[in-house]
Amino acid sequence: MNGKFISIEGIEGAGKSTQLQFIADYIRSHGKQVVVTREPGGTSLGEEIREVLLKSTEQAMAEDTELLLMFAARAEHLQQVILPALKRGDWVVSDRFVDATFAYQGGGRGINEQRIKQLADWTLQGCNTDVTFLFDLPVALGQTRVEQRQQQKDRFEQEKQVFFERVRNCYLARAEVEPKRIKRIDASQNIEAIQQQLKHQLAPLLEATL
Amino acid sequence: MNGKFISIEGIEGAGKSTQLQFIADYIRSHGKQVVVTREPGGTSLGEEIREVLLKSTEQAMAEDTELLLMFAARAEHLQQVILPALKRGDWVVSDRFVDATFAYQGGGRGINEQRIKQLADWTLQGCNTDVTFLFDLPVALGQTRVEQRQQQKDRFEQEKQVFFERVRNCYLARAEVEPKRIKRIDASQNIEAIQQQLKHQLAPLLEATL
Repeated sequence: MNGKFISIEGIEGAGKSTQLQFIADYIRSHGKQVVVTREPGGTSLGEEIREVLLKSTEQAMAEDTELLLMFAARAEHLQQVILPALKRGDWVVSDRFVDATFAYQGGGRGINEQRIKQLADWTLQGCNTDVTFLFDLPVALGQTRVEQRQQQKDRFEQEKQVFFERVRNCYLARAEVEPKRIKRIDASQNIEAIQQQLKHQLAPLLEATL
Repeated sequence: MNGKFISIEGIEGAGKSTQLQFIADYIRSHGKQVVVTREPGGTSLGEEIREVLLKSTEQAMAEDTELLLMFAARAEHLQQVILPALKRGDWVVSDRFVDATFAYQGGGRGINEQRIKQLADWTLQGCNTDVTFLFDLPVALGQTRVEQRQQQKDRFEQEKQVFFERVRNCYLARAEVEPKRIKRIDASQNIEAIQQQLKHQLAPLLEATL
């Protein structure tokens, strides 16, 4: 397998979409085929599962159900899109992958991390990203970027902020535990500085597959 | 918890539906509340997942995806229907439960048994059936009974006889390993003989909850 598997992660407002495109273009400019994909989704079956997940029913689904559905969509994505691409020698750049489940369901919602890890291990079977770029910035700055209008935050929005603080902290903790795989990018910098950093981080991967 | 959890298993044509009703009625005649349910399904979300699973698609879904979807439906069934019923003191009679996954996906499709066991352990967390009735009969006899129903065959019913031989053998092997939980019933007998055997097997459970 000559291709590399890259994911990008981060809370809302971290500028993931812009940088996703930059990363894909930069790798293509080195003569590589790049498959750009995303989670949840990435396959037609994944989209169906996503619909089941989003559909509101009178009774909320059990946490276990939600986790198993998320990993079902991820298994399909991995087996039908990511692994075949890597086997062809293509590079894969995914908007979110497994770290998002730890951050949002684990950190954000408080689902037991060990339970998530067991399903992650089962589903990935050792196939994780080569590099994950964590676009990190203070939650308040992310929120400001997302919101066009500046308003007094009500109680619900403050709760949302606490939720995203937990998500961010979980991402940061993971980056500390796995510094070789997860590269923290300071997303509060200007675009040129971020892209300089991305080029710097991508260089060894591109050299390794010359 | 005063209620008991019973499942019935067997290949197509084993007469499960008829006996399911008999078992429920017999338990009710002893003054118990009985919840009759089935897998896959048993909840509205489970039915949605069942539709995704049974839909014949051009591209087959990955084995891992199929397993995770099955266990997602099962987790929902367990958390929203089975465990609440048992906590109320009701009895639960389910048309299929976890043994079906070992038999069909493991025995039939050849998915690694350890992989299934890991998901089963994750999802059940120790909550399995008190008794499972395995309605066993030769595959050819079951097939003849199914063909007489003359209905549209779904993806599983289209599988070949060899497949059902593997399913049956897996069920029988499980009954040998867990003789206290899984009771083999000879489904080629006449209905009266089968129901006599069911009453005999249910007696100790009913006495234990007098």
